[in-house]
Amino acid sequence: MALDTDRLVSLRREFHERPEPAWREFWTTARIVDELDRIGVDDVLVGPEILDAQARMAVPEDDELDTWLARARETGADPDTLDRLAGGHTGAMAVIEGSEPGPTLGLRVDIDGLPREEATGEDHVPAAEGFRSRNEGAMHACGHDAHITFGLGVVGAFADREFPGTLKVLFQPAEEVVGGAAAVAESGRLDDVDRFLAVHVGLGHPTGEVVAGVTDFLAVSQFRAEFAGAASHAGGLPARGRNAVQAMATAVQNLYAIPRHEGGITRVNAGNVGGGTASNIIPESAYIGGEVRGGTTELMEYMRDHADRVLENAAEMHDCELSVERTGEAPSADNDDSVVDVVEAAASDTEGIDSVVRHAPLGGSEDATYLMRRVQEQGGTAAFVCVGTDHPGGHHTATFDVDEASLEPGIETLATALRRLADGF
Amino acid sequence: MALDTDRLVSLRREFHERPEPAWREFWTTARIVDELDRIGVDDVLVGPEILDAQARMAVPEDDELDTWLARARETGADPDTLDRLAGGHTGAMAVIEGSEPGPTLGLRVDIDGLPREEATGEDHVPAAEGFRSRNEGAMHACGHDAHITFGLGVVGAFADREFPGTLKVLFQPAEEVVGGAAAVAESGRLDDVDRFLAVHVGLGHPTGEVVAGVTDFLAVSQFRAEFAGAASHAGGLPARGRNAVQAMATAVQNLYAIPRHEGGITRVNAGNVGGGTASNIIPESAYIGGEVRGGTTELMEYMRDHADRVLENAAEMHDCELSVERTGEAPSADNDDSVVDVVEAAASDTEGIDSVVRHAPLGGSEDATYLMRRVQEQGGTAAFVCVGTDHPGGHHTATFDVDEASLEPGIETLATALRRLADGF
Amino acid sequence: MALDTDRLVSLRREFHERPEPAWREFWTTARIVDELDRIGVDDVLVGPEILDAQARMAVPEDDELDTWLARARETGADPDTLDRLAGGHTGAMAVIEGSEPGPTLGLRVDIDGLPREEATGEDHVPAAEGFRSRNEGAMHACGHDAHITFGLGVVGAFADREFPGTLKVLFQPAEEVVGGAAAVAESGRLDDVDRFLAVHVGLGHPTGEVVAGVTDFLAVSQFRAEFAGAASHAGGLPARGRNAVQAMATAVQNLYAIPRHEGGITRVNAGNVGGGTASNIIPESAYIGGEVRGGTTELMEYMRDHADRVLENAAEMHDCELSVERTGEAPSADNDDSVVDVVEAAASDTEGIDSVVRHAPLGGSEDATYLMRRVQEQGGTAAFVCVGTDHPGGHHTATFDVDEASLEPGIETLATALRRLADGF
Amino acid sequence: MALDTDRLVSLRREFHERPEPAWREFWTTARIVDELDRIGVDDVLVGPEILDAQARMAVPEDDELDTWLARARETGADPDTLDRLAGGHTGAMAVIEGSEPGPTLGLRVDIDGLPREEATGEDHVPAAEGFRSRNEGAMHACGHDAHITFGLGVVGAFADREFPGTLKVLFQPAEEVVGGAAAVAESGRLDDVDRFLAVHVGLGHPTGEVVAGVTDFLAVSQFRAEFAGAASHAGGLPARGRNAVQAMATAVQNLYAIPRHEGGITRVNAGNVGGGTASNIIPESAYIGGEVRGGTTELMEYMRDHADRVLENAAEMHDCELSVERTGEAPSADNDDSVVDVVEAAASDTEGIDSVVRHAPLGGSEDATYLMRRVQEQGGTAAFVCVGTDHPGGHHTATFDVDEASLEPGIETLATALRRLADGF
Repeated sequence: MALDTDRLVSLRREFHERPEPAWREFWTTARIVDELDRIGVDDVLVGPEILDAQARMAVPEDDELDTWLARARETGADPDTLDRLAGGHTGAMAVIEGSEPGPTLGLRVDIDGLPREEATGEDHVPAAEGFRSRNEGAMHACGHDAHITFGLGVVGAFADREFPGTLKVLFQPAEEVVGGAAAVAESGRLDDVDRFLAVHVGLGHPTGEVVAGVTDFLAVSQFRAEFAGAASHAGGLPARGRNAVQAMATAVQNLYAIPRHEGGITRVNAGNVGGGTASNIIPESAYIGGEVRGGTTELMEYMRDHADRVLENAAEMHDCELSVERTGEAPSADNDDSVVDVVEAAASDTEGIDSVVRHAPLGGSEDATYLMRRVQEQGGTAAFVCVGTDHPGGHHTATFDVDEASLEPGIETLATALRRLADGF
Repeated sequence: MALDTDRLVSLRREFHERPEPAWREFWTTARIVDELDRIGVDDVLVGPEILDAQARMAVPEDDELDTWLARARETGADPDTLDRLAGGHTGAMAVIEGSEPGPTLGLRVDIDGLPREEATGEDHVPAAEGFRSRNEGAMHACGHDAHITFGLGVVGAFADREFPGTLKVLFQPAEEVVGGAAAVAESGRLDDVDRFLAVHVGLGHPTGEVVAGVTDFLAVSQFRAEFAGAASHAGGLPARGRNAVQAMATAVQNLYAIPRHEGGITRVNAGNVGGGTASNIIPESAYIGGEVRGGTTELMEYMRDHADRVLENAAEMHDCELSVERTGEAPSADNDDSVVDVVEAAASDTEGIDSVVRHAPLGGSEDATYLMRRVQEQGGTAAFVCVGTDHPGGHHTATFDVDEASLEPGIETLATALRRLADGF
Repeated sequence: MALDTDRLVSLRREFHERPEPAWREFWTTARIVDELDRIGVDDVLVGPEILDAQARMAVPEDDELDTWLARARETGADPDTLDRLAGGHTGAMAVIEGSEPGPTLGLRVDIDGLPREEATGEDHVPAAEGFRSRNEGAMHACGHDAHITFGLGVVGAFADREFPGTLKVLFQPAEEVVGGAAAVAESGRLDDVDRFLAVHVGLGHPTGEVVAGVTDFLAVSQFRAEFAGAASHAGGLPARGRNAVQAMATAVQNLYAIPRHEGGITRVNAGNVGGGTASNIIPESAYIGGEVRGGTTELMEYMRDHADRVLENAAEMHDCELSVERTGEAPSADNDDSVVDVVEAAASDTEGIDSVVRHAPLGGSEDATYLMRRVQEQGGTAAFVCVGTDHPGGHHTATFDVDEASLEPGIETLATALRRLADGF
Repeated sequence: MALDTDRLVSLRREFHERPEPAWREFWTTARIVDELDRIGVDDVLVGPEILDAQARMAVPEDDELDTWLARARETGADPDTLDRLAGGHTGAMAVIEGSEPGPTLGLRVDIDGLPREEATGEDHVPAAEGFRSRNEGAMHACGHDAHITFGLGVVGAFADREFPGTLKVLFQPAEEVVGGAAAVAESGRLDDVDRFLAVHVGLGHPTGEVVAGVTDFLAVSQFRAEFAGAASHAGGLPARGRNAVQAMATAVQNLYAIPRHEGGITRVNAGNVGGGTASNIIPESAYIGGEVRGGTTELMEYMRDHADRVLENAAEMHDCELSVERTGEAPSADNDDSVVDVVEAAASDTEGIDSVVRHAPLGGSEDATYLMRRVQEQGGTAAFVCVGTDHPGGHHTATFDVDEASLEPGIETLATALRRLADGF
């Protein structure tokens, strides 16, 4: 049952109002399941069925999970579904069997919001038209509300089962922390996929433009480093302490100074740091929430190994203990030309798409690369598609928004490409 | 009306249960005023009458003040007194006119608690005997509850007015942030004081010991430095940001590396730092809550000037703006031998005091030094007295406690010394 | 008068034996002038005639220049020529007027050696065959001996004047310090050049291969930063000093930490540092000999500006004075396709060349870019050619050597290309 | 045979003209031996007889030793003595047996010069009167020429053997590098000493003043740290290097930032650093010549241990190897009151001494502390005496000089004190 324009816009706005950050997509998952049921999908998997729970990264503390789960309950999400998601096992997958044998197709959309305030001004459409975030401190500032809508739209387009093979549409949690895709990959649920698409909206491309194969994914590794020293009175016993802030500052200085690499792009950031308690106490603890990236997985690993050495020695230099948690990680990935060809042609044939770009660089990271590589390792092929949309603010800013006119052409491009990939198998 | 032992213990425990951090001593001040009224002091000044409001340092945000003011109201503090303290103008002063002309005497006690949890174990007397802090996250962990009791006890001892001259007992707010004494000094309320005592309990000296003149006050200057840069995406636009965490880390490294000084003790600490938002965003802001100290005021100023230069250049190096707020400051100070002599003799004559030490070093900072210097600049003399007490945990730790047996001898030593200073004027 | 194979090898070995570092190419220049006279070139310019003396960078101290000048005299270089080169005004230019009017052609070769020891082992051909460097501590480790030979060979090929226009062959000094080309460019001597080639041997390309247009020149800026503080006794008066080594170390840490740039390649190195005198003296001086690079001139300028800010603030943070001298600088540059086309064809037609590569990246810096840009700014066109040669050791290593079989095909490729550029003008 | 004033002045000037730095005191030692022979001392030990050769610290390379040995030969020093000093085994000891049994007395003077230029101006007496240093680059800038004269003067005063016991006068090498006293102590040559004096001239005390017991010796430990990484081309292969200058800079930043200690004075200095070769090469080596000090030996050890941890982790952080050589070390030491009493009285009884100070602080380091502690550990007693002298420039500066009028009273004070220590044993 294909979804019409009004329905798509309505769904997108409903999700926009209820952004939930990584691993807290309780209401979101339950709402997706509702809609999949409404469309008539027989086989709907959720959280624990599509995740290797141990492979999840950056899962929040229980208190935080409980807060969001309670909020989802209050908002009226289906209690049975919520029970299945407990402990931060979010996300869903729709599996549709076609009417005849054929390949297994995969589409991945991501569903999490960001932990940031949304703009309130009249020139911000969601505020002006009354669908601004109701979850204070959270926002769909990267278009994942549109991604969910793409996913539901494609499910709707295949609901008649008039295609050869099987379609799996993954509604993936926790992309923003680069923490969800690895858990899905490790679950093996996509191991039988022969043709795979992932999709993102916007990325600086306008409404009416499609990029058939996004390139230049930076491999990324995120970490949280904790330095544990010992407190002491800064005036009376300065040498009795073990100064965790000194360790942290030494690490920050040297992290940014990791040598550039002749092999390509490298990145490093100590994006969130802190330490100590009061000005007159030698700081006993400190932390760095940081990341490294590389133009290839190998370059990321070069940075990660060097960063680990910096962290360890900065801690030891100041007699502090160190613990480093890997909070997110994604490799780089490449598109298969054969899939890009099909997407390029499908986009060209879609009404509302007037510009088809074969390749454009991302220059950032995406954990869909885990899934692309998994599929490719099992013999499948894959591409990462961008559906352009006019967006007034940049991604991750308070004024980000998507042009809803891009929803329908985006869905049609994806559906057409998937159908042709099935037919041409 | 002298206070008996039971009353003193009861008062001390009542104050222990209601610790309020700097500039938030609403309930505490109101309760002191109650007790002064009960004792029969005619002239009781509060907050705005004893403070130069502009000279207060480290005053919290309005929200924080309001929270504590509301709590004080709920606890039943006198509403009229509370109204007079609004906006964080806490503290009180009892002024008692003697029956005949004579010098003006001053005694200063401080009244604020610390922002830390109190221990809960059975071996912690306040927990075992039911007077542990009822204000979660706050604790009288430095004995200011005993100091208040000293102050009230001395007022009681002089309540009969049988002495020449005038006694001013200052219940000073915000000592722990080194932020209250300057405001009192600037108010001029102590400018007519001829003989001045300040007092502290414990400091490693046992019950039964008195130090007549505590020495080696470290001059201190506390600051909050804010670095403002610009955010950017760490993967996509790393050079578009202006990295406030890099500025902060550079400052931390170089603050600790300020050269030691041949002239004596120096100290520096970046005790509380933070910055940035997320691992993938170039940090746009960062801060350091820090302090410098010196064995003399000049040494502190050497450190302060050098620290300022470090902060400024660390910010500019990374293209960040800097703002530095002086959040607390206290000079060093010296005791007058003539006053120390009197205290020494008074302590020797006090029952319960079996060890009188003329001088012992503090090795820390105290903003009473502002008041001592102010008095001395106006021609008066001063000393800083320590009343020993067995304390199981160190100052500022969760298990700090005072031995209540030290309350009465402490009050008697102070009262005797003040009376002799009046008589001998 | 074309030079035969034996002559070319003999010349190359003669130059190999007498390497002279930047601005010290006294014997080398005089020997080139001798040979140009022998070939019969009428118009030979030297040093001061082809240089803007003020625009020279990284010129050594007078003592050093005098030492090398004296050595050149002792070796029997022509005294009249040497007199014209005094003060480090080295280099030469042959100007040959063709028999009929036509365009002005330019070829640039560089002539300086490197300050490093040459290998002595039997597997190092120059050692085994007796033409190892006679100037201890100096070596032709980057093939400029071959470049000189290329230049003389091309002059020989045009000595008959049977071509339209004018040929200028520049024997440029001081390439290794990125310090000579700017001075030639500023002299204006190449401003009338219509078609320009520069050439390098080797670069990892084997004998028999030619790269028609070398790309990816890193723009570079080299600097020497001097930090001036004040000495003091480290035990007795540590705060009386102004510590230049602290300033230097702060700068080093922050130079390497200059943010990576989304626009492309950046590089930074503090390659040579020092400071202080004795372990018990606060260091009063320190220096950094460093460099920054960029994939484009703009990226280099981004790094240079940021480095300047780091240096200034590191100095000021530690109360030191700073002076920064720009010791070398070269922009990036692009080849003109029209010239690359001609070189590509000429190489293909040359006996001994069996592999013609249109473009290959340099990944380093070259001050020929100054000359290419100068020519291009005046309306001319240019390309940078690489003549492959089997080289056993890497460039700048002790075992670097060139395969003399590459000399003749290299000269023929260059001469053919220049002649066709003249004919086709 | 007591030396008269002219002789003393003449000797002092002769030594002033021939300063030799640590372990290079070849001419100096030979000249001392000459003079001891002339005075008539029977038992004169030299270098290897008074040193544990393995315990020497900061011995220069052989080349450097050979240069100074050759210079001593050329200057006419006794060849037989020089032969005994080969390899940097310098210094001498005069042993005089008294005419009757008694205690063993010890006096230590040090004999080395400093590696610095001497002033040339007319207001610098040695320049004006023609006895400025003839060894360019070396200078007696700390008064050890006067110390040698003290030693010879005392020997002269005891040459008649009219005293009970034995006198050992040690002419110690290599004090300036804190490297000689440990080797003498380890030799055991002073183990039988019952009463020991060491002496220094000047230290800010004027002619006519004596300090009976100098206090506040800073314990010191000097080191040379070498960082070994790997070179690489900074433009082409920046990540292939292992950057020793980054390691060094990280160490410097963190050395100065070692926390101040509540127990007293601490010091740290990276007084002499360097690294790398050229601006375009990733630096493969770097070094720090540094030191730490403490008001007590324990405080020095706190600093030394912390410094070692900084060095190790800075190296490892940047993947470099580290080697640390201990190049000098001296403990703190205390005077024995009984010896100070005797010196105080002796000075008071000496003509020309008009001010006797019991104690004054050094605020620096001195390796005589090794000898004092050695004597004290064996049951003897000791004091460190200062003989005041007007000195126009500070110690270790180019204009340092001593007032020769202080020579004779200094010798008399020392001789009187030693004689009384013998008599009163």
